[in-house]
Amino acid sequence: MNPTVELVSTGAELLSGRTVNTHAQLLAQHLALLGLSLARDTTIPDERAVLSAAVTEALTRASIVVVSGGLGATSDDITRDAVADAIGAELVIHEDTRAGIRQRYARTNRMWSEAVSRNALILSGAEVLSNRVGLAPGEMIAWRDKLIFLLPGPPREFEAVLVDHIVPRLRALVEEQPLQQVFEMVGIGESDVVRLLPEDNFPGTGVSVAYCARPASVELRLSALPGASAEHACAVAIVRERLGEWIYAESQIELELVLVDLLRRMGATVATAESCTGGLVGHRLTNVPGSSEIFLGGVIAYANASKVRDLGVPAELIERVGAVSAEVALAMAGGVRERFGADFGLGITGIAGPGGGTELKPVGLVYIACASANGDVAREFHFTGPRETIKERSSQMALDLLRRQAGVRALT
Amino acid sequence: MNPTVELVSTGAELLSGRTVNTHAQLLAQHLALLGLSLARDTTIPDERAVLSAAVTEALTRASIVVVSGGLGATSDDITRDAVADAIGAELVIHEDTRAGIRQRYARTNRMWSEAVSRNALILSGAEVLSNRVGLAPGEMIAWRDKLIFLLPGPPREFEAVLVDHIVPRLRALVEEQPLQQVFEMVGIGESDVVRLLPEDNFPGTGVSVAYCARPASVELRLSALPGASAEHACAVAIVRERLGEWIYAESQIELELVLVDLLRRMGATVATAESCTGGLVGHRLTNVPGSSEIFLGGVIAYANASKVRDLGVPAELIERVGAVSAEVALAMAGGVRERFGADFGLGITGIAGPGGGTELKPVGLVYIACASANGDVAREFHFTGPRETIKERSSQMALDLLRRQAGVRALT
Repeated sequence: MNPTVELVSTGAELLSGRTVNTHAQLLAQHLALLGLSLARDTTIPDERAVLSAAVTEALTRASIVVVSGGLGATSDDITRDAVADAIGAELVIHEDTRAGIRQRYARTNRMWSEAVSRNALILSGAEVLSNRVGLAPGEMIAWRDKLIFLLPGPPREFEAVLVDHIVPRLRALVEEQPLQQVFEMVGIGESDVVRLLPEDNFPGTGVSVAYCARPASVELRLSALPGASAEHACAVAIVRERLGEWIYAESQIELELVLVDLLRRMGATVATAESCTGGLVGHRLTNVPGSSEIFLGGVIAYANASKVRDLGVPAELIERVGAVSAEVALAMAGGVRERFGADFGLGITGIAGPGGGTELKPVGLVYIACASANGDVAREFHFTGPRETIKERSSQMALDLLRRQAGVRALT
Repeated sequence: MNPTVELVSTGAELLSGRTVNTHAQLLAQHLALLGLSLARDTTIPDERAVLSAAVTEALTRASIVVVSGGLGATSDDITRDAVADAIGAELVIHEDTRAGIRQRYARTNRMWSEAVSRNALILSGAEVLSNRVGLAPGEMIAWRDKLIFLLPGPPREFEAVLVDHIVPRLRALVEEQPLQQVFEMVGIGESDVVRLLPEDNFPGTGVSVAYCARPASVELRLSALPGASAEHACAVAIVRERLGEWIYAESQIELELVLVDLLRRMGATVATAESCTGGLVGHRLTNVPGSSEIFLGGVIAYANASKVRDLGVPAELIERVGAVSAEVALAMAGGVRERFGADFGLGITGIAGPGGGTELKPVGLVYIACASANGDVAREFHFTGPRETIKERSSQMALDLLRRQAGVRALT
């Protein structure tokens, strides 16, 4: 029988409305890859007795209990104590962890205090789960025939320890791994994806379809049990044939990674001229390790004066057609390409709102241009949503335009 | 005594990883306005027996239980049945609701089927809570000395029924609103905050302390019941005195908002020269509506050639001290300030990793400079964590340096 997994999330911020609890979704998404689903998520405040009782309850139902949050050094970090109460364990200092934290403090010239060493407290008998992105490690302890995992609360750290330590252990426990195929798509909406697929997706084939829509991208996942491998392969072929134009990856990676890899293999470079996105495209490209090989830099031409001075956009052009126009986007792309001596230049100009919209040029109107030896192209978009969503969608479509232009052929 | 509120969320999509559960945050945010906090959120699948047991458990702890989801007309909408099981009630058709749904179907030419009238099933004795944005109404039923609310699952409908029906009823039940004070801090770690506060925070005063740490910022919240108002005021004074240097706001807002507001009130402008942050500082500033008043733009000088060509950093300086140095950060800040004619120039150069580090200049070494009529300053940082965290911390400390320089005095 497959393991049953429950999550117990702790943290005042999760119940005060300050932050949305993303732990359950993160865990569930990784479980889904193993063909498992989360049996229950219980979110409770940082209260030792309450948490201890919740862990005890969870242990009566699930074979694996994951507890998130409350592993820091402050007085409201009571997870270790609560779990110790629940299973009758002691707390001990893990010397290697303590030494590691001391070193890190020394290296970064931070003031050391004994309070910090609470970060190194673990349940006696527990295995320490290294945390590559934060101070407090996770831990795993076996209790009777159950496994209890303690994970740090910050989502980045939660996911790092989850991926590094829990997923591999679960994979070993899962009996029948489902077949999975992921498609990452850009430039198409979820409803159009549905429209292009067979009615009711793939009825009677044993292939299940799951969608996950994000701003300007859609993830499609086909799952089937090994028994339905032929039907699964057929469904994969249908998706490739009907949606190939929009598929940028067949694994769960972000568009900027695909792009940096593509340009690196081409030996090509890019420079960006951003107005309404304010630097987001550069930020996303530089999130990719090694992007310095392909990203030369750019100009955040937020004020029109910068468009003229730094990108050589003719002032009279802005006068005539306005800063938010295909012509200015093209001039920005060409200007930054020339200035930086890049193979590709991206130009983005638009109205992110909430103010600044007019009858003729409403909030959400964005022009994106790409200049290269493959020719210069500009596209017009009408995005909806709040300011940050419009910026996000603009950056996504700018990267997609670059992907399509780079894909045309090797540069002459 | 104030009511205690628990949420029971149901829905396969919440446990499959497809959607994040926003119900808890929505409810908690509205409770916080009343000085209440959510006591617990239990998320479970659409299983009648499991849901029924969870509601029974919640009723043993809380005076008010909110159940979300599963009020539709499909076979997996089992919330009414499960709650009926839990409190031993019958289900009856609510004729007005049924008639209303029939009308809506007629108006929108949708096919009517008796299955749809499941939407009109309610617990006998329950009060129907109108749903202005969807088909299925909510309902409220009193059981012993408790109140049970059933709310539709779609977040828009959940919030509509919450705001229209639950919030007014809760307001009438709340006895005393607690005192709350939030401090947002930058440039100090959670453990240093703890070290600077009284041992064990404020023991015996009735003042409770909650922390929420993010990359390069810490939120501190002091809460107390009205009876402890003097102790609360004293604790607030102690925090201001000991941590004032790092407090950038006493309400829950982000650093970029504080900065845009500060510069706008000063009538000052800023331009950015970003290397390792790759545009993140510009992105964050332009996330703030109206930032065009104070942000002129910037240069993403990722390649050294751009530092020289676009920012006037002397090539021999880069030769001599290296691109990652206080001198180059200062030259970048001064160069972008001059080029854009801004009151403040920010320069950021560092090694975000994972590659590119050396013995002398390790990954995480970042220099941040600010140039203005208040003088030019540069600071050296040693950040830890993955690439994106180092970028995030760098952008945070750059905004903090700007905040401090702008705060020195009105510009001459």
